[in-house]
Amino acid sequence: MYELGVVYRNIQRAERTVADGLARYGSATVHEAMGRVGLLQPYMRPIYAGAQVSGTAVTVLLQPGDNWMLHVAAEQIQPGDLVIAGVTAACTDGYFGDLLASSFQARGARALVIDAGVRDVKTLTEMGFPVWSKAISSKGTIKATLGSVNVPLVCAGALVQPGDVIVADDDGVVCVPRALAAQTLAAAAKREALEGEKRDRLASGVLGLDMYQMREPLARAGLRYID
Amino acid sequence: MYELGVVYRNIQRAERTVADGLARYGSATVHEAMGRVGLLQPYMRPIYAGAQVSGTAVTVLLQPGDNWMLHVAAEQIQPGDLVIAGVTAACTDGYFGDLLASSFQARGARALVIDAGVRDVKTLTEMGFPVWSKAISSKGTIKATLGSVNVPLVCAGALVQPGDVIVADDDGVVCVPRALAAQTLAAAAKREALEGEKRDRLASGVLGLDMYQMREPLARAGLRYID
Amino acid sequence: MYELGVVYRNIQRAERTVADGLARYGSATVHEAMGRVGLLQPYMRPIYAGAQVSGTAVTVLLQPGDNWMLHVAAEQIQPGDLVIAGVTAACTDGYFGDLLASSFQARGARALVIDAGVRDVKTLTEMGFPVWSKAISSKGTIKATLGSVNVPLVCAGALVQPGDVIVADDDGVVCVPRALAAQTLAAAAKREALEGEKRDRLASGVLGLDMYQMREPLARAGLRYID
Amino acid sequence: MYELGVVYRNIQRAERTVADGLARYGSATVHEAMGRVGLLQPYMRPIYAGAQVSGTAVTVLLQPGDNWMLHVAAEQIQPGDLVIAGVTAACTDGYFGDLLASSFQARGARALVIDAGVRDVKTLTEMGFPVWSKAISSKGTIKATLGSVNVPLVCAGALVQPGDVIVADDDGVVCVPRALAAQTLAAAAKREALEGEKRDRLASGVLGLDMYQMREPLARAGLRYID
Amino acid sequence: MYELGVVYRNIQRAERTVADGLARYGSATVHEAMGRVGLLQPYMRPIYAGAQVSGTAVTVLLQPGDNWMLHVAAEQIQPGDLVIAGVTAACTDGYFGDLLASSFQARGARALVIDAGVRDVKTLTEMGFPVWSKAISSKGTIKATLGSVNVPLVCAGALVQPGDVIVADDDGVVCVPRALAAQTLAAAAKREALEGEKRDRLASGVLGLDMYQMREPLARAGLRYID
Amino acid sequence: MYELGVVYRNIQRAERTVADGLARYGSATVHEAMGRVGLLQPYMRPIYAGAQVSGTAVTVLLQPGDNWMLHVAAEQIQPGDLVIAGVTAACTDGYFGDLLASSFQARGARALVIDAGVRDVKTLTEMGFPVWSKAISSKGTIKATLGSVNVPLVCAGALVQPGDVIVADDDGVVCVPRALAAQTLAAAAKREALEGEKRDRLASGVLGLDMYQMREPLARAGLRYID
Repeated sequence: MYELGVVYRNIQRAERTVADGLARYGSATVHEAMGRVGLLQPYMRPIYAGAQVSGTAVTVLLQPGDNWMLHVAAEQIQPGDLVIAGVTAACTDGYFGDLLASSFQARGARALVIDAGVRDVKTLTEMGFPVWSKAISSKGTIKATLGSVNVPLVCAGALVQPGDVIVADDDGVVCVPRALAAQTLAAAAKREALEGEKRDRLASGVLGLDMYQMREPLARAGLRYID
Repeated sequence: MYELGVVYRNIQRAERTVADGLARYGSATVHEAMGRVGLLQPYMRPIYAGAQVSGTAVTVLLQPGDNWMLHVAAEQIQPGDLVIAGVTAACTDGYFGDLLASSFQARGARALVIDAGVRDVKTLTEMGFPVWSKAISSKGTIKATLGSVNVPLVCAGALVQPGDVIVADDDGVVCVPRALAAQTLAAAAKREALEGEKRDRLASGVLGLDMYQMREPLARAGLRYID
Repeated sequence: MYELGVVYRNIQRAERTVADGLARYGSATVHEAMGRVGLLQPYMRPIYAGAQVSGTAVTVLLQPGDNWMLHVAAEQIQPGDLVIAGVTAACTDGYFGDLLASSFQARGARALVIDAGVRDVKTLTEMGFPVWSKAISSKGTIKATLGSVNVPLVCAGALVQPGDVIVADDDGVVCVPRALAAQTLAAAAKREALEGEKRDRLASGVLGLDMYQMREPLARAGLRYID
Repeated sequence: MYELGVVYRNIQRAERTVADGLARYGSATVHEAMGRVGLLQPYMRPIYAGAQVSGTAVTVLLQPGDNWMLHVAAEQIQPGDLVIAGVTAACTDGYFGDLLASSFQARGARALVIDAGVRDVKTLTEMGFPVWSKAISSKGTIKATLGSVNVPLVCAGALVQPGDVIVADDDGVVCVPRALAAQTLAAAAKREALEGEKRDRLASGVLGLDMYQMREPLARAGLRYID
Repeated sequence: MYELGVVYRNIQRAERTVADGLARYGSATVHEAMGRVGLLQPYMRPIYAGAQVSGTAVTVLLQPGDNWMLHVAAEQIQPGDLVIAGVTAACTDGYFGDLLASSFQARGARALVIDAGVRDVKTLTEMGFPVWSKAISSKGTIKATLGSVNVPLVCAGALVQPGDVIVADDDGVVCVPRALAAQTLAAAAKREALEGEKRDRLASGVLGLDMYQMREPLARAGLRYID
Repeated sequence: MYELGVVYRNIQRAERTVADGLARYGSATVHEAMGRVGLLQPYMRPIYAGAQVSGTAVTVLLQPGDNWMLHVAAEQIQPGDLVIAGVTAACTDGYFGDLLASSFQARGARALVIDAGVRDVKTLTEMGFPVWSKAISSKGTIKATLGSVNVPLVCAGALVQPGDVIVADDDGVVCVPRALAAQTLAAAAKREALEGEKRDRLASGVLGLDMYQMREPLARAGLRYID
């Protein structure tokens, strides 16, 4: 499936307001709103706690131990984008540090999601440039073999197309296909509205058993209470 | 060993003052006080640093990808309890989030220990509801298959009985059997008293080699110093 | 290769000013300055964020589940040293806690790097004694079997000789052989000087593609742009 | 929960004919017959393919890197037993080799299940003494610290009581509580009888969709076919 | 990206002779012939050694712990197909055993590739039905939640489209996109032809250094020989 | 410690008869004879069961995803050598296949031990060329960056010097330093002689408790028997 040595310059990005709007709902709500699909594997962790972002995907297919294509990708970034990178074989090297982050930030990128390692995490944290990665590693990379930019790829088990919306926070990362972004935003907003009310009721001591009317289905499934 | 589809309502909890008293000693001292047993595997990590708690165990046996029984468990929580959950097969899904945490907190639960994933960790951190888990994941769960509440179970490699005391902090999680809780508390207090004095001596530059009188046994074991 | 039951008292340490000087460049720059070798595996993580240290290596070869030799090592510590410990078989037990840290700190040690587990991490954090480890675990250890102090050993996949310089920060840990320490310091300083300027240019929007003159080699490698 | 330094000599074993009868159904069928519980984690693998056994459990609680209690356990073995060993902390050392296997075999043991490593696997294979383990490792162990024999313990995530029936084959290992052994044998036999017939129908080309009458529930769940 | 609850009945399969022809070259040669892309992660292992197959992909998207869609997929199998299954979240349960294998075999399937667990491996081996999987596990699954059949999906890190060619052997599994299958077959045949001759020369003692004319580029890269 | 871009042509090999003689004792006995050190991590597994070899080490330091230096190493092989390869960063790519094996075999190499992946394992098995590796993977490698040949290196956690003796079998891999090879051979022979007699006694029903006179030390350690 993978095309190597290609950069697609004109990609169709999800609509800006939709892409931007998804950040506030977070990865868990968005994933639910999509029908429980689209998540990257949970080994993808943020380098610092608290960041919550969304953006349109510029995809980068990397070779193991080689970060050449991240430089190529920088030129394709538009404000509001988020760079998401997969590797053709498992690798934990530190592909990305403060220099590339300065460049990405200057181009308007909001974050990096990379199925490999990053470094300079202290500086990245000070810069406020969030990264979700598989590893943190001082190990540097070379610039010798071509990958691609803006091709469909797999990142941490999820299929990502250029222009899709990526939502990332402390809980993980989810990919929302461009075609589903608007309806997902609506569904997420609806879920969120319902959740606020539910949270208040639960916090007041109402049980989920009653609020969700679970007692009857539990009994039907055969649950027995023993005193 | 596992009984499915059962909720035991009347469990014998460790004595409250004992259960509460163990928190201050932390998991490492308590585990030593028990004779170096009872620890959960070290892959169990807190979602935020600094929490140190103890409580009486409400146990929950979950099915993979299914959090139904956490709602059932909520009703069994009494103030001072801590919910501890095992799963019948390895799973990293996000079983627990801010809604359930609101409910658990309202019931008086002090924490959750779960051999699976959690989500909404940013909100849980703001709420001050500590969780020790195997993973953080946005992945939601369904409500379709029965497990059990307050049965003996295995969590992260440790055997837990309902009513046992669970002690958890940044170092990990330990389970103290109800029958041993009082003597463990006494032993932990004794260790702690001794440790303070030892720490002062070591901090003043006295060597452990001398303080613990290790030189002679080391020589007997054959240790050679080479200049 | 390993000698058991031996303590070498007189080791040749890297020059103090060189060993001290490497801290400011961090593990990633130092590793680059050495030609991309010398790194410990990226599973070695700091127990708290933000520490950045360097020091001369006192090496400790440990047996699984046995921390006896850490006490032996304490006596060999000189101000400016950093203790680095390997184990003869994989182990995640908590070999090191606040008591040993008090002792190490009193002797002038700057940090511990251990290919195993540590505990009392909250107290260690409060003490400001940084540790890089493979695991955090409450599990205690015994004192029954001899290892060695100041022998060459393998820690997290890297070969370390006593007296080498260890550099550790949020990105990882690197070992600089004593004989290469001075030239590595010079090379790191040079890299750092260049990086500051590059960072400014990238932050101003200049692309790496242009700054590093990558366009021509990319074209030669066959990169195609598709509109 | 764990008692250290104790050997229970008189345990109640599951009835011999029941314990022996479970072998032929294999771990998958037995686990289904129990209601899908009781399995050890799938990282437990046989050292050679094709063995399929059952036996009554002599349990051994081991310390990390220490196989002393396996010698103590040998004396407690009766013909038809199977030794199952847990460790108080994760360890991959080679606790068991051809010498202990000769002893176990002489005592009438049918197999070893151990949540750690074994060695001499070539000789064990030639001897026809099957082992299910977490690892294969040449690493030897010491004999220094007490564990226990015939106490309840956790092995690879499953709770095992002395006298329970263990069933192991190429698919994995399952523990059948003594009290449930007879009814599990009956249920397994029933499942097996049904499976033979089903296998024939499926092999003849009948679809599971029809044989299990799944078309209607699938449609009800919303499955759409697109041409 | 994932569509849930859908079965595509009419997929375009790679040409039969091409799909069949790829088996003889094996996964390593085919992956090279494609330009070193398309591999599934190396954790995918055959349940027995020696099988080497290729086939057109019927894809199945599964839910964790739920094998319902494998029954749905059976109906879509045509002779020469190979079933390849991904899961929406990591899972090691035993989704597939001898009953489903009987059904798949009756429909003409050549193998199963599944990013999860299988069971009944002894019987599958006797049947000669090869499976490549992430795990072997007795753990059964339920039939409760919809996935999809013949949608694009990710299996063990690789993107697979229905109708693509899958090549699997002892070295691993590779996915050849339908559109590239013919040219890949030609390229693989060419590589294989060259390899036979090379093998003979190397076996006769000619060095790769000379045969591949590496001495000059190695010297240029700076390789030094020291006597 | 690592020197890159260097090939040492004249290494001091352990004496041939000693190096050859160690094979028959196997990795477990040799490791014991050395005092329980020198083992590679147990994740190193043979590609087929039953091989048991020893040889003098030609060491190869590889770059991730790059097998160039294996060709350079081939020229340095002498009959009776065994090639042992480490990588500067973790990698599972298939560095070695049937072509290189033909070359190594022609040069007289007995086996390969590599802390990375191999491929063509079916052909390697047919050729009778044993390999111990971390992974099996179809993933190919490039030839672009220099490593070294015959430098000291770390392989799977063990330190290896060129000319050391490597012993490998189904239980794992052990490295015997050249200087200790002769005494290790003598110690292994002595152990083996004793083991034969012990095995006979244990097989006849004598308990290890009696044969090793463990009853008294167990009692002293506090072991209690409960009827």
